[in-house]
Amino acid sequence: MNPTDYELQVGVLLRGCRLKAGLSLNGVQEKSGGKWKAGTVGSYERGQRGLTLGTFHELATWYGVKVVDLLPDALEAQVGAAIVNAIEARMRDGSTHE
Amino acid sequence: MNPTDYELQVGVLLRGCRLKAGLSLNGVQEKSGGKWKAGTVGSYERGQRGLTLGTFHELATWYGVKVVDLLPDALEAQVGAAIVNAIEARMRDGSTHE
Repeated sequence: MNPTDYELQVGVLLRGCRLKAGLSLNGVQEKSGGKWKAGTVGSYERGQRGLTLGTFHELATWYGVKVVDLLPDALEAQVGAAIVNAIEARMRDGSTHE
Repeated sequence: MNPTDYELQVGVLLRGCRLKAGLSLNGVQEKSGGKWKAGTVGSYERGQRGLTLGTFHELATWYGVKVVDLLPDALEAQVGAAIVNAIEARMRDGSTHE
């Protein structure tokens, strides 16, 4: 699937949320007892898997954050889209492995 | 598919957004030149079709609103979840036709 810019931005924020929690993708899988597979979460973060609202809400809740905190819209209002775009560009440059 | 409560609430807000715009489901289809099918949008509003973030963002943009304005999280902060639940209950009671 071809992710939209919006989905890419959400993915970046999802990834930031995980890193803020100090978790690797495998760490997420372990800590969730296998509910959230490393590969699945990774593909969400890269916007490569269609993330439905229901799943997105579940994952956000698991991280202990609100859906709105993971949306570029909210971030835009706070600090501007530039930040999202910068992180996104960095991620596209290949630093997607951790 | 079994919609989560969250998806049901988003559906209610989506429907409210459409009604606020004075559009029937067929009206959405006509006004969008067929991009948004009446049946598809209706199933989104009932939470019966998995709505991905990308599509949700596109539809919100088409309505001229932000994604955050269509999320129960944001509404909770403003006026409390009680309103969402009340609308949801009314919708479940069968007044889903317009």
